[in-house]
Amino acid sequence: MLLHIDSSADATADSVTRRLTADFARAWRERHPAAEYRHRDLATAPVPPLTAAFPTLGRRVVREGFVPPAKVPALIETPAEAREWELTLPLVTELAAADTVLLGVPMYNLAVPAALKAWIDRVTFPGAFTHPDTGESLLAGSRVVVAMARGGAYGPDTGRTDLDFQTPYLRAWLGRLGVRQDRIHPVAAELTRVDVLPHPAAAAAASATSLTRARATLTALATA
Amino acid sequence: MLLHIDSSADATADSVTRRLTADFARAWRERHPAAEYRHRDLATAPVPPLTAAFPTLGRRVVREGFVPPAKVPALIETPAEAREWELTLPLVTELAAADTVLLGVPMYNLAVPAALKAWIDRVTFPGAFTHPDTGESLLAGSRVVVAMARGGAYGPDTGRTDLDFQTPYLRAWLGRLGVRQDRIHPVAAELTRVDVLPHPAAAAAASATSLTRARATLTALATA
Repeated sequence: MLLHIDSSADATADSVTRRLTADFARAWRERHPAAEYRHRDLATAPVPPLTAAFPTLGRRVVREGFVPPAKVPALIETPAEAREWELTLPLVTELAAADTVLLGVPMYNLAVPAALKAWIDRVTFPGAFTHPDTGESLLAGSRVVVAMARGGAYGPDTGRTDLDFQTPYLRAWLGRLGVRQDRIHPVAAELTRVDVLPHPAAAAAASATSLTRARATLTALATA
Repeated sequence: MLLHIDSSADATADSVTRRLTADFARAWRERHPAAEYRHRDLATAPVPPLTAAFPTLGRRVVREGFVPPAKVPALIETPAEAREWELTLPLVTELAAADTVLLGVPMYNLAVPAALKAWIDRVTFPGAFTHPDTGESLLAGSRVVVAMARGGAYGPDTGRTDLDFQTPYLRAWLGRLGVRQDRIHPVAAELTRVDVLPHPAAAAAASATSLTRARATLTALATA
Protein backbone atom coordinates (compact mmCIF):
# COMPACT_ATOMS: atom_id res chain seq x y z
CA MET A 1 0.00 0.00 0.00
CA LEU A 2 1.17 3.50 -0.89
CA LEU A 3 0.18 6.15 1.65
CA HIS A 4 0.51 9.55 0.00
CA ILE A 5 0.43 12.54 2.34
CA ASP A 6 0.49 16.18 1.24
CA SER A 7 1.05 19.05 3.68
CA SER A 8 1.46 22.19 1.57
CA ALA A 9 -1.08 24.90 2.41
CA ASP A 10 -1.01 25.68 -1.27
CA ALA A 11 -3.53 23.22 -2.64
CA THR A 12 -3.14 24.58 -6.16
CA ALA A 13 -0.79 23.69 -8.99
CA ASP A 14 1.61 26.33 -7.58
CA SER A 15 2.76 23.84 -4.96
CA VAL A 16 6.08 22.26 -5.90
CA THR A 17 5.69 19.42 -3.40
CA ARG A 18 2.22 18.58 -4.67
CA ARG A 19 3.52 18.35 -8.22
CA LEU A 20 6.40 16.14 -7.06
CA THR A 21 4.19 13.79 -5.02
CA ALA A 22 1.61 13.57 -7.82
CA ASP A 23 4.38 12.52 -10.24
CA PHE A 24 5.67 9.90 -7.80
CA ALA A 25 2.20 8.54 -7.06
CA ARG A 26 1.37 8.24 -10.77
CA ALA A 27 4.61 6.39 -11.54
CA TRP A 28 4.23 4.13 -8.49
CA ARG A 29 0.64 3.21 -9.31
CA GLU A 30 1.57 2.39 -12.91
CA ARG A 31 4.30 0.11 -11.54
CA HIS A 32 1.94 -1.47 -8.94
CA PRO A 33 -1.50 -1.49 -10.64
CA ALA A 34 -3.01 -3.96 -8.16
CA ALA A 35 -1.73 -2.30 -4.98
CA GLU A 36 -3.82 -0.18 -2.66
CA TYR A 37 -3.32 3.59 -2.77
CA ARG A 38 -4.40 6.11 -0.18
CA HIS A 39 -4.12 9.90 -0.34
CA ARG A 40 -4.35 12.11 2.73
CA ASP A 41 -4.38 15.87 2.25
CA LEU A 42 -3.43 17.61 5.49
CA ALA A 43 -4.33 21.04 4.09
CA THR A 44 -7.86 20.36 2.87
CA ALA A 45 -8.57 17.92 5.75
CA PRO A 46 -6.39 19.11 8.66
CA VAL A 47 -5.67 16.73 11.51
CA PRO A 48 -7.57 18.16 14.51
CA PRO A 49 -5.34 19.66 17.25
CA LEU A 50 -4.64 17.50 20.30
CA THR A 51 -6.75 18.12 23.37
CA ALA A 52 -5.73 17.40 26.97
CA ALA A 53 -7.31 13.94 26.77
CA PHE A 54 -4.62 12.84 24.29
CA PRO A 55 -1.65 13.13 26.67
CA THR A 56 -3.81 11.82 29.54
CA LEU A 57 -4.66 8.67 27.59
CA GLY A 58 -1.08 8.43 26.30
CA ARG A 59 0.36 8.49 29.81
CA ARG A 60 -2.04 5.74 30.91
CA VAL A 61 -0.90 3.59 27.97
CA VAL A 62 2.75 4.16 28.92
CA ARG A 63 2.06 3.21 32.54
CA GLU A 64 0.45 -0.02 31.34
CA GLY A 65 3.66 -0.86 29.50
CA PHE A 66 2.91 0.46 26.00
CA VAL A 67 -0.10 -1.67 25.18
CA PRO A 68 -0.87 -2.13 21.45
CA PRO A 69 -3.71 -0.17 19.75
CA ALA A 70 -6.12 -3.11 20.08
CA LYS A 71 -5.93 -2.85 23.87
CA VAL A 72 -6.21 0.93 24.12
CA PRO A 73 -10.06 1.05 24.14
CA ALA A 74 -10.09 -0.91 27.41
CA LEU A 75 -8.04 1.88 29.00
CA ILE A 76 -10.29 4.74 27.88
CA GLU A 77 -12.05 6.42 30.82
CA THR A 78 -13.84 9.46 29.39
CA PRO A 79 -15.77 10.50 26.24
CA ALA A 80 -13.00 13.04 25.55
CA GLU A 81 -10.41 10.24 25.50
CA ALA A 82 -12.67 8.13 23.27
CA ARG A 83 -12.92 11.06 20.86
CA GLU A 84 -9.13 11.52 20.80
CA TRP A 85 -8.62 7.82 20.09
CA GLU A 86 -11.26 7.88 17.35
CA LEU A 87 -9.29 10.67 15.65
CA THR A 88 -5.95 8.93 16.14
CA LEU A 89 -6.54 5.23 15.36
CA PRO A 90 -7.23 5.65 11.59
CA LEU A 91 -3.95 7.56 11.16
CA VAL A 92 -2.01 4.93 13.12
CA THR A 93 -3.63 2.06 11.21
CA GLU A 94 -2.95 3.44 7.75
CA LEU A 95 0.67 4.34 8.56
CA ALA A 96 1.32 0.86 9.97
CA ALA A 97 -0.27 -0.70 6.86
CA ALA A 98 1.74 1.28 4.29
CA ASP A 99 4.69 -0.38 2.56
CA THR A 100 5.67 2.97 1.06
CA VAL A 101 4.92 6.31 2.68
CA LEU A 102 5.17 9.38 0.45
CA LEU A 103 5.39 12.67 2.31
CA GLY A 104 5.06 16.00 0.48
CA VAL A 105 6.80 18.52 2.75
CA PRO A 106 7.45 22.16 1.90
CA MET A 107 9.84 23.97 4.25
CA TYR A 108 7.92 26.54 6.29
CA ASN A 109 10.07 28.75 8.48
CA LEU A 110 13.02 26.32 8.34
CA ALA A 111 10.95 23.31 9.47
CA VAL A 112 8.03 21.07 8.52
CA PRO A 113 4.61 22.79 8.13
CA ALA A 114 2.31 22.93 11.14
CA ALA A 115 -0.13 20.77 9.17
CA LEU A 116 2.42 17.94 9.01
CA LYS A 117 3.45 18.41 12.64
CA ALA A 118 -0.20 18.05 13.65
CA TRP A 119 -0.23 14.66 11.92
CA ILE A 120 3.13 13.70 13.50
CA ASP A 121 1.95 14.71 16.99
CA ARG A 122 -1.23 12.66 16.66
CA VAL A 123 0.11 9.57 14.92
CA THR A 124 3.02 9.17 17.36
CA PHE A 125 0.94 7.47 20.01
CA PRO A 126 2.76 5.39 22.64
CA GLY A 127 3.08 1.75 21.65
CA ALA A 128 1.28 2.24 18.34
CA PHE A 129 4.10 0.94 16.14
CA THR A 130 5.60 -1.73 18.38
CA HIS A 131 4.79 -5.37 17.73
CA PRO A 132 3.18 -6.58 20.97
CA ASP A 133 4.96 -9.97 20.88
CA THR A 134 8.39 -9.28 19.41
CA GLY A 135 8.82 -5.67 20.55
CA GLU A 136 10.05 -4.82 17.05
CA SER A 137 8.84 -1.80 15.11
CA LEU A 138 5.93 -2.34 12.75
CA LEU A 139 7.66 0.20 10.50
CA ALA A 140 10.97 -1.68 10.26
CA GLY A 141 10.11 -2.70 6.70
CA SER A 142 8.54 0.58 5.60
CA ARG A 143 10.05 2.79 2.96
CA VAL A 144 9.54 6.56 3.36
CA VAL A 145 10.01 8.93 0.44
CA VAL A 146 10.04 12.61 1.39
CA ALA A 147 9.46 15.08 -1.43
CA MET A 148 10.55 18.50 -0.16
CA ALA A 149 10.61 22.04 -1.49
CA ARG A 150 12.55 24.96 -0.08
CA GLY A 151 12.83 28.59 -1.00
CA GLY A 152 16.54 28.56 -0.13
CA ALA A 153 19.39 26.06 -0.43
CA TYR A 154 20.62 24.02 2.52
CA GLY A 155 22.97 21.46 0.96
CA PRO A 156 26.43 20.51 2.28
CA ASP A 157 28.17 23.22 0.22
CA THR A 158 25.92 26.11 1.24
CA GLY A 159 27.13 26.79 4.79
CA ARG A 160 23.46 26.65 5.78
CA THR A 161 23.01 22.99 6.70
CA ASP A 162 22.46 23.96 10.36
CA LEU A 163 19.37 25.93 9.31
CA ASP A 164 17.72 22.82 7.88
CA PHE A 165 15.26 21.60 10.54
CA GLN A 166 13.34 19.61 7.97
CA THR A 167 15.47 16.66 6.74
CA PRO A 168 17.39 15.88 9.98
CA TYR A 169 14.18 16.27 11.95
CA LEU A 170 12.21 13.83 9.81
CA ARG A 171 15.13 11.36 9.93
CA ALA A 172 15.26 11.59 13.73
CA TRP A 173 11.50 11.26 14.20
CA LEU A 174 11.13 8.39 11.71
CA GLY A 175 14.14 6.70 13.28
CA ARG A 176 12.47 6.82 16.69
CA LEU A 177 9.41 5.14 15.19
CA GLY A 178 11.67 2.35 13.96
CA VAL A 179 12.01 3.22 10.27
CA ARG A 180 15.49 2.21 9.05
CA GLN A 181 17.69 5.14 8.00
CA ASP A 182 18.53 3.46 4.68
CA ARG A 183 14.79 3.22 3.95
CA ILE A 184 14.29 7.00 4.28
CA HIS A 185 14.69 8.88 0.98
CA PRO A 186 14.64 12.68 1.27
CA VAL A 187 14.48 14.43 -2.11
CA ALA A 188 14.55 18.24 -2.18
CA ALA A 189 13.78 20.80 -4.87
CA GLU A 190 15.66 23.88 -3.68
CA LEU A 191 15.65 27.62 -4.49
CA THR A 192 11.97 27.33 -5.43
CA ARG A 193 11.32 31.02 -4.75
CA VAL A 194 13.25 32.40 -7.70
CA ASP A 195 9.93 33.45 -9.21
CA VAL A 196 9.14 35.91 -6.40
CA LEU A 197 12.50 37.02 -5.03
CA PRO A 198 15.05 38.94 -7.09
CA HIS A 199 17.84 36.48 -7.86
CA PRO A 200 20.87 36.36 -10.10
CA ALA A 201 20.41 34.31 -13.26
CA ALA A 202 22.60 31.58 -11.76
CA ALA A 203 19.99 30.98 -9.04
CA ALA A 204 17.24 30.46 -11.61
CA ALA A 205 19.41 27.91 -13.39
CA ALA A 206 20.25 26.18 -10.09
CA SER A 207 16.56 26.11 -9.20
CA ALA A 208 15.64 24.47 -12.49
CA THR A 209 18.45 21.93 -12.14
CA SER A 210 17.39 21.12 -8.59
CA LEU A 211 13.78 20.52 -9.68
CA THR A 212 14.83 18.34 -12.61
CA ARG A 213 17.07 16.26 -10.35
CA ALA A 214 14.36 15.88 -7.71
CA ARG A 215 11.92 14.68 -10.38
CA ALA A 216 14.37 12.16 -11.78
CA THR A 217 15.22 10.83 -8.33
CA LEU A 218 11.55 10.46 -7.43
CA THR A 219 10.77 8.67 -10.67
CA ALA A 220 13.63 6.26 -10.02
CA LEU A 221 12.34 5.66 -6.47
CA ALA A 222 8.77 5.16 -7.68
CA THR A 223 9.69 2.52 -10.23
CA ALA A 224 12.44 0.76 -8.23
CA MET B 1 4.04 44.52 27.33
CA LEU B 2 4.40 40.86 28.25
CA LEU B 3 3.03 38.47 25.64
CA HIS B 4 2.53 35.08 27.30
CA ILE B 5 1.95 32.17 24.94
CA ASP B 6 1.19 28.60 26.02
CA SER B 7 1.25 25.68 23.60
CA SER B 8 0.88 22.53 25.70
CA ALA B 9 -2.13 20.42 24.71
CA ASP B 10 -2.41 19.65 28.38
CA ALA B 11 -4.42 22.61 29.65
CA THR B 12 -4.50 21.21 33.16
CA ALA B 13 -2.16 21.58 36.11
CA ASP B 14 -0.31 18.49 34.81
CA SER B 15 1.47 20.67 32.27
CA VAL B 16 5.00 21.52 33.40
CA THR B 17 5.35 24.36 30.91
CA ARG B 18 2.06 25.93 32.00
CA ARG B 19 3.19 25.90 35.61
CA LEU B 20 6.54 27.44 34.61
CA THR B 21 4.98 30.18 32.47
CA ALA B 22 2.37 30.96 35.15
CA ASP B 23 5.16 31.43 37.71
CA PHE B 24 7.10 33.70 35.35
CA ALA B 25 4.04 35.76 34.44
CA ARG B 26 3.10 36.25 38.10
CA ALA B 27 6.62 37.40 39.06
CA TRP B 28 6.88 39.65 35.98
CA ARG B 29 3.52 41.31 36.64
CA GLU B 30 4.42 41.96 40.26
CA ARG B 31 7.63 43.58 39.05
CA HIS B 32 5.79 45.61 36.33
CA PRO B 33 2.36 46.36 37.85
CA ALA B 34 1.53 49.08 35.31
CA ALA B 35 2.60 47.16 32.21
CA GLU B 36 0.23 45.51 29.78
CA TYR B 37 -0.10 41.73 29.89
CA ARG B 38 -1.54 39.48 27.26
CA HIS B 39 -2.08 35.73 27.39
CA ARG B 40 -2.60 33.58 24.32
CA ASP B 41 -3.46 29.92 24.76
CA LEU B 42 -2.73 28.01 21.57
CA ALA B 43 -4.41 24.85 22.90
CA THR B 44 -7.77 26.27 23.94
CA ALA B 45 -7.80 28.78 21.04
CA PRO B 46 -5.77 27.15 18.24
CA VAL B 47 -4.42 29.30 15.44
CA PRO B 48 -6.42 28.30 12.34
CA PRO B 49 -4.44 26.36 9.70
CA LEU B 50 -3.14 28.30 6.70
CA THR B 51 -5.18 28.12 3.53
CA ALA B 52 -3.85 28.60 -0.01
CA ALA B 53 -4.67 32.32 0.13
CA PHE B 54 -1.95 32.83 2.75
CA PRO B 55 1.02 31.92 0.52
CA THR B 56 -0.67 33.63 -2.44
CA LEU B 57 -0.93 36.91 -0.51
CA GLY B 58 2.54 36.41 0.96
CA ARG B 59 4.13 36.01 -2.48
CA ARG B 60 2.42 39.20 -3.67
CA VAL B 61 3.82 41.08 -0.67
CA VAL B 62 7.33 39.76 -1.43
CA ARG B 63 7.02 40.80 -5.09
CA GLU B 64 6.06 44.32 -3.95
CA GLY B 65 9.30 44.47 -1.97
CA PHE B 66 8.11 43.34 1.49
CA VAL B 67 5.56 46.07 2.18
CA PRO B 68 4.72 46.70 5.87
CA PRO B 69 1.45 45.39 7.40
CA ALA B 70 -0.26 48.77 6.97
CA LYS B 71 0.06 48.46 3.20
CA VAL B 72 -1.00 44.82 2.91
CA PRO B 73 -4.78 45.52 2.70
CA ALA B 74 -4.22 47.42 -0.57
CA LEU B 75 -2.73 44.24 -2.05
CA ILE B 76 -5.58 41.93 -1.06
CA GLU B 77 -7.49 40.64 -4.10
CA THR B 78 -9.96 38.05 -2.79
CA PRO B 79 -12.21 37.46 0.25
CA ALA B 80 -10.09 34.40 1.07
CA GLU B 81 -6.98 36.59 1.26
CA ALA B 82 -8.85 39.14 3.39
CA ARG B 83 -9.83 36.34 5.77
CA GLU B 84 -6.23 35.09 6.01
CA TRP B 85 -4.99 38.60 6.77
CA GLU B 86 -7.71 39.11 9.37
CA LEU B 87 -6.49 35.98 11.16
CA THR B 88 -2.83 36.98 10.84
CA LEU B 89 -2.66 40.71 11.63
CA PRO B 90 -3.60 40.48 15.35
CA LEU B 91 -0.83 37.92 15.93
CA VAL B 92 1.71 40.07 14.10
CA THR B 93 0.64 43.23 15.94
CA GLU B 94 0.84 41.76 19.43
CA LEU B 95 4.21 40.10 18.79
CA ALA B 96 5.66 43.35 17.44
CA ALA B 97 4.28 45.25 20.47
CA ALA B 98 5.70 42.90 23.12
CA ASP B 99 8.83 43.90 25.01
CA THR B 100 9.01 40.43 26.55
CA VAL B 101 7.66 37.30 24.87
CA LEU B 102 7.15 34.27 27.09
CA LEU B 103 6.77 30.99 25.22
CA GLY B 104 5.65 27.82 27.01
CA VAL B 105 6.92 24.98 24.82
CA PRO B 106 6.74 21.29 25.68
CA MET B 107 8.81 19.01 23.45
CA TYR B 108 6.49 16.88 21.30
CA ASN B 109 8.25 14.27 19.21
CA LEU B 110 11.64 16.02 19.51
CA ALA B 111 10.30 19.38 18.29
CA VAL B 112 7.87 22.19 19.10
CA PRO B 113 4.16 21.24 19.30
CA ALA B 114 2.04 21.57 16.18
CA ALA B 115 0.00 24.21 18.04
CA LEU B 116 3.07 26.45 18.35
CA LYS B 117 4.19 25.74 14.78
CA ALA B 118 0.74 26.86 13.57
CA TRP B 119 1.34 30.20 15.33
CA ILE B 120 4.89 30.42 13.93
CA ASP B 121 3.72 29.65 10.37
CA ARG B 122 1.02 32.32 10.54
CA VAL B 123 2.90 35.08 12.37
CA THR B 124 5.94 34.83 10.09
CA PHE B 125 4.39 36.93 7.35
CA PRO B 126 6.76 38.57 4.81
CA GLY B 127 7.77 42.08 5.86
CA ALA B 128 5.75 42.00 9.07
CA PHE B 129 8.67 42.68 11.41
CA THR B 130 10.80 44.96 9.27
CA HIS B 131 10.75 48.69 9.91
CA PRO B 132 9.59 50.19 6.58
CA ASP B 133 12.04 53.12 6.77
CA THR B 134 15.16 51.75 8.42
CA GLY B 135 14.89 48.13 7.28
CA GLU B 136 15.74 47.05 10.83
CA SER B 137 13.82 44.37 12.69
CA LEU B 138 10.98 45.52 14.92
CA LEU B 139 12.00 42.67 17.23
CA ALA B 140 15.64 43.81 17.64
CA GLY B 141 14.81 45.02 21.17
CA SER B 142 12.54 42.12 22.16
CA ARG B 143 13.42 39.65 24.86
CA VAL B 144 12.17 36.09 24.41
CA VAL B 145 11.96 33.69 27.34
CA VAL B 146 11.28 30.08 26.37
CA ALA B 147 10.03 27.80 29.15
CA MET B 148 10.45 24.24 27.92
CA ALA B 149 9.67 20.76 29.23
CA ARG B 150 11.04 17.50 27.90
CA GLY B 151 10.50 13.89 28.80
CA GLY B 152 14.17 13.14 28.13
CA ALA B 153 17.45 14.98 28.59
CA TYR B 154 19.23 16.71 25.72
CA GLY B 155 22.00 18.70 27.41
CA PRO B 156 25.64 18.92 26.27
CA ASP B 157 26.67 15.91 28.40
CA THR B 158 23.90 13.56 27.24
CA GLY B 159 25.12 12.62 23.76
CA ARG B 160 21.62 13.53 22.59
CA THR B 161 22.00 17.19 21.66
CA ASP B 162 21.45 16.34 17.98
CA LEU B 163 17.96 15.07 18.87
CA ASP B 164 16.92 18.47 20.22
CA PHE B 165 14.93 20.15 17.45
CA GLN B 166 13.33 22.52 19.93
CA THR B 167 15.97 24.96 21.28
CA PRO B 168 18.18 25.31 18.16
CA TYR B 169 15.08 25.59 16.02
CA LEU B 170 13.54 28.40 18.07
CA ARG B 171 16.91 30.19 18.11
CA ALA B 172 17.20 29.92 14.33
CA TRP B 173 13.62 31.04 13.66
CA LEU B 174 13.74 33.92 16.15
CA GLY B 175 17.12 34.96 14.75
CA ARG B 176 15.63 35.15 11.26
CA LEU B 177 12.92 37.47 12.61
CA GLY B 178 15.65 39.72 13.97
CA VAL B 179 15.63 38.80 17.67
CA ARG B 180 19.17 39.06 19.05
CA GLN B 181 20.65 35.74 20.19
CA ASP B 182 21.65 37.23 23.56
CA ARG B 183 18.01 38.25 24.11
CA ILE B 184 16.75 34.66 23.74
CA HIS B 185 16.58 32.74 27.04
CA PRO B 186 15.73 29.05 26.72
CA VAL B 187 15.04 27.39 30.08
CA ALA B 188 14.30 23.64 30.13
CA ALA B 189 12.87 21.33 32.76
CA GLU B 190 14.11 17.90 31.66
CA LEU B 191 13.28 14.27 32.45
CA THR B 192 9.69 15.33 33.19
CA ARG B 193 8.34 11.85 32.43
CA VAL B 194 9.79 10.10 35.50
CA ASP B 195 6.25 9.79 36.83
CA VAL B 196 5.11 7.56 33.97
CA LEU B 197 8.21 5.75 32.76
CA PRO B 198 10.20 3.36 34.94
CA HIS B 199 13.41 5.16 35.85
CA PRO B 200 16.29 4.66 38.24
CA ALA B 201 16.11 6.78 41.40
CA ALA B 202 18.90 8.98 40.03
CA ALA B 203 16.61 10.08 37.18
CA ALA B 204 13.90 11.19 39.60
CA ALA B 205 16.46 13.23 41.50
CA ALA B 206 17.81 14.73 38.27
CA SER B 207 14.26 15.56 37.19
CA ALA B 208 13.54 17.39 40.44
CA THR B 209 16.84 19.27 40.25
CA SER B 210 16.15 20.27 36.65
CA LEU B 211 12.70 21.62 37.57
CA THR B 212 14.04 23.55 40.57
CA ARG B 213 16.78 25.10 38.43
CA ALA B 214 14.33 26.03 35.67
CA ARG B 215 12.07 27.73 38.22
CA ALA B 216 14.93 29.69 39.75
CA THR B 217 16.21 30.79 36.35
CA LEU B 218 12.76 31.91 35.27
CA THR B 219 12.19 33.86 38.48
CA ALA B 220 15.53 35.59 37.97
CA LEU B 221 14.57 36.43 34.38
CA ALA B 222 11.12 37.68 35.40
CA THR B 223 12.47 40.08 38.01
CA ALA B 224 15.61 41.20 36.19
